[in-house]
Amino acid sequence: MNLTNPFFKKKGPILLSKIINVIKSDSSNIKKNNVNDIKEINIAKKKEITFLHSSKYSSHAVKTKASFCVTNAKLEKFLPKTCVAIIVKNVLLSTAKITEMFYPDAINDNFDNTVLNISKTSFKKKIKYGNNVLIGKNVKIGKNSIIGHNSIIEKNVTIGKNCSIGSNVIIRNSLIGNNVSVLDGAIIGKKGFGFFPNQKKNIKYPHIGLVIINDNCEIGCGCTIDRGSISNTEIGKNTFLDNQVHIAHNVKIGDNCMIAGQVGFAGSTTIGNNVMIGGQAGISGHLNIGNNVQIAGGSGVVNDIPKNSKVMGYPAKSIKLFLKENK
Amino acid sequence: MNLTNPFFKKKGPILLSKIINVIKSDSSNIKKNNVNDIKEINIAKKKEITFLHSSKYSSHAVKTKASFCVTNAKLEKFLPKTCVAIIVKNVLLSTAKITEMFYPDAINDNFDNTVLNISKTSFKKKIKYGNNVLIGKNVKIGKNSIIGHNSIIEKNVTIGKNCSIGSNVIIRNSLIGNNVSVLDGAIIGKKGFGFFPNQKKNIKYPHIGLVIINDNCEIGCGCTIDRGSISNTEIGKNTFLDNQVHIAHNVKIGDNCMIAGQVGFAGSTTIGNNVMIGGQAGISGHLNIGNNVQIAGGSGVVNDIPKNSKVMGYPAKSIKLFLKENK
Amino acid sequence: MNLTNPFFKKKGPILLSKIINVIKSDSSNIKKNNVNDIKEINIAKKKEITFLHSSKYSSHAVKTKASFCVTNAKLEKFLPKTCVAIIVKNVLLSTAKITEMFYPDAINDNFDNTVLNISKTSFKKKIKYGNNVLIGKNVKIGKNSIIGHNSIIEKNVTIGKNCSIGSNVIIRNSLIGNNVSVLDGAIIGKKGFGFFPNQKKNIKYPHIGLVIINDNCEIGCGCTIDRGSISNTEIGKNTFLDNQVHIAHNVKIGDNCMIAGQVGFAGSTTIGNNVMIGGQAGISGHLNIGNNVQIAGGSGVVNDIPKNSKVMGYPAKSIKLFLKENK
Repeated sequence: MNLTNPFFKKKGPILLSKIINVIKSDSSNIKKNNVNDIKEINIAKKKEITFLHSSKYSSHAVKTKASFCVTNAKLEKFLPKTCVAIIVKNVLLSTAKITEMFYPDAINDNFDNTVLNISKTSFKKKIKYGNNVLIGKNVKIGKNSIIGHNSIIEKNVTIGKNCSIGSNVIIRNSLIGNNVSVLDGAIIGKKGFGFFPNQKKNIKYPHIGLVIINDNCEIGCGCTIDRGSISNTEIGKNTFLDNQVHIAHNVKIGDNCMIAGQVGFAGSTTIGNNVMIGGQAGISGHLNIGNNVQIAGGSGVVNDIPKNSKVMGYPAKSIKLFLKENK
Repeated sequence: MNLTNPFFKKKGPILLSKIINVIKSDSSNIKKNNVNDIKEINIAKKKEITFLHSSKYSSHAVKTKASFCVTNAKLEKFLPKTCVAIIVKNVLLSTAKITEMFYPDAINDNFDNTVLNISKTSFKKKIKYGNNVLIGKNVKIGKNSIIGHNSIIEKNVTIGKNCSIGSNVIIRNSLIGNNVSVLDGAIIGKKGFGFFPNQKKNIKYPHIGLVIINDNCEIGCGCTIDRGSISNTEIGKNTFLDNQVHIAHNVKIGDNCMIAGQVGFAGSTTIGNNVMIGGQAGISGHLNIGNNVQIAGGSGVVNDIPKNSKVMGYPAKSIKLFLKENK
Repeated sequence: MNLTNPFFKKKGPILLSKIINVIKSDSSNIKKNNVNDIKEINIAKKKEITFLHSSKYSSHAVKTKASFCVTNAKLEKFLPKTCVAIIVKNVLLSTAKITEMFYPDAINDNFDNTVLNISKTSFKKKIKYGNNVLIGKNVKIGKNSIIGHNSIIEKNVTIGKNCSIGSNVIIRNSLIGNNVSVLDGAIIGKKGFGFFPNQKKNIKYPHIGLVIINDNCEIGCGCTIDRGSISNTEIGKNTFLDNQVHIAHNVKIGDNCMIAGQVGFAGSTTIGNNVMIGGQAGISGHLNIGNNVQIAGGSGVVNDIPKNSKVMGYPAKSIKLFLKENK
């Protein structure tokens, strides 16, 4: 799902000259345009700006509908004629700065101070809820869903029908499907761990993505699922997470996966369907794990894994090979 | 301790014909019996049903007092004549379905909506407590115990004397001894991560076990200790857990153990007495770790470990061998 | 920073004879002195007592200004003439007992029952805060800082300016600088996991240290940062921690570090500046990690790492070597 966050209040249009001024690009001949939004290269539209920082995305680049693209001199060649390249030294840093111009609220995770006690909202008569439940503005909760004690559903969250939200849960910037269980102490939708290192004071990356959790999922106690930076973090249907799992920004997990306790996913990794992952395994960032893959507990996955494989070890390799080498 | 959960409301007796109908067994010649309960094979009694899914448990099977046993054609031979075998394709799935018939409330972990603010209970004058403490029905708390802010003691929990329960703690389905410290944010007694994978919608396993924490233990911040499925999860006397430890369902840990931060135990593993485990080590499921074992931090234990051993690595092996191989 | 905890109420001076009686030392010829405090060997002053349990600290020992030092017969030779050696069998156990004499409140982490709802404190008009925020005695919070829902700032905590404290956060015994973000569910300042194993009932170590978090840091969701035993746990300026990181007592982390999700640090380790640590890596106790070190995700560090190194694996070694060996 390439849904963009309907929740952060977007500014703009912003004059391109202002943008170029902020990111200090030399591409100064095209300043008189208005730019409506910033999006990923495969979904950006006309009058929007996107970014290209790696040749990995060249197949998307050649087809992009964006009118403007922040990139560097080497990657410029992949862009179609309809897209004006804006050349910068550090593509991601410039992207962060432009995103902040459009979405100034997405940098911090300050607590939502617009919440009300649920007993003062229209949900009072609609759903079953515990003590000290707080609900933000523009929250939707479906029939037969329940919310446990001390849980905080911040503004702009949608929860489907028949969901069981536990106690001490915090949810923000998330779309949750039907029949989902979120167990006690889970924290969903916090901004990802993305920033540009900078001596004295790091530059935080705005996170305008969502967390999307599809139908029939279970999220264990104490899990943390961060929202995406520009794309979303998404968990497919009927996928179950055990306790203390950490899912970083932009991760996509498929349907029918089983993720055991204390597993961690670094940012922007994609996991297929029917994947089983044992306890404490770690999956590096920007990887593709195919359908039906099985990853043994404690493994460290640092490369893509083709579908139907069973892997073990650090770095994870064929489980047969691993067990042979480690008799 | 083979205590069965005194808390879940048990249904039954249930007519065997109803059970056989639910699990679709062909063993249809013995339908006119009443079945009182479902229990593990070593503790089930006459007129109760049990299950046998692996030859690992054959030594218990030959002595079982259960009147009925769900099993498969290969394992039937281990049962005594007093126990009628009920042959099914998937023993554990059938066991889950039967357990759900007896204990329909044990599948979900919906929040306890029967709790009251402690100031409205008889504990108001008996113990020291923080702000916003919630207490369920049938809770017992011993002398000189204290309960921190925002903590939730759900129905049917027993806490002994001189215990210090921190803030933001959630406890359900648990028996806690004397002089136990449960530090901030720990979540104890949630159902285990047990279910049968099923496309579109997994079948959740009912968890009717308890968490039993014996005298003088310390449970660190943010630990999660899941209750057992049919047996209990148990922690022996004077065992200390550091922060962020995860203990899955049915795990038994002995006395005087030291478990460092972020260690994880998969389901149904048994740990002896005086065991020391370094930070981030992971212990696979269904293992036996002997008394006085030392497991180095970061190790991945995938095999049984005999008593008095020191192990390290993944898969964990003799620490001497590991260090020699990894100079 | 060698700041000693200004918060625990110190008893004393205590007569040396009382101390010697508690720790059962044979050094009985110097009993008529008063002892003012117990401190680490490099910062203890005249009329104070310190301890020396390892030759690793001999360079500090020769220069100590302490008047008394608990040590053993082998290490006595490192002490200057101005420092009287008190010979015991178990230096650390004796140190724990003496620390408890001076700081009897530092053994337990019972919840702070002196807190008030923030709306009943002077902060009501000074800062922005959420629902159900609790504030202990002697708390300082700087301008423009905000405190999220259900968070507990226990007694004796100082928070600087422009800080964003999330929801469900617990902070005790801590000094927090300016512009620090503490995200939801973090638990900061709890006593470390330090005790002396003792059959039937372990002897808990008093933790009189602080957690010090310097300017511009970010602490992720669900992190646990324990306070020091005698020294402090400290995090340098502009260091960012991702979610579910565990930092044990006495750890010192430098400036400008990036610590990814689920990393764990065992006690008393020192990390330099500009260190980058990938997800789920574990760092053993009492190590020195140099400036500019990069540690790959999932690594297990069991030895000191010289500055500017890149390491990977378990035990962590040169990343080039590791990748060559694990093609």
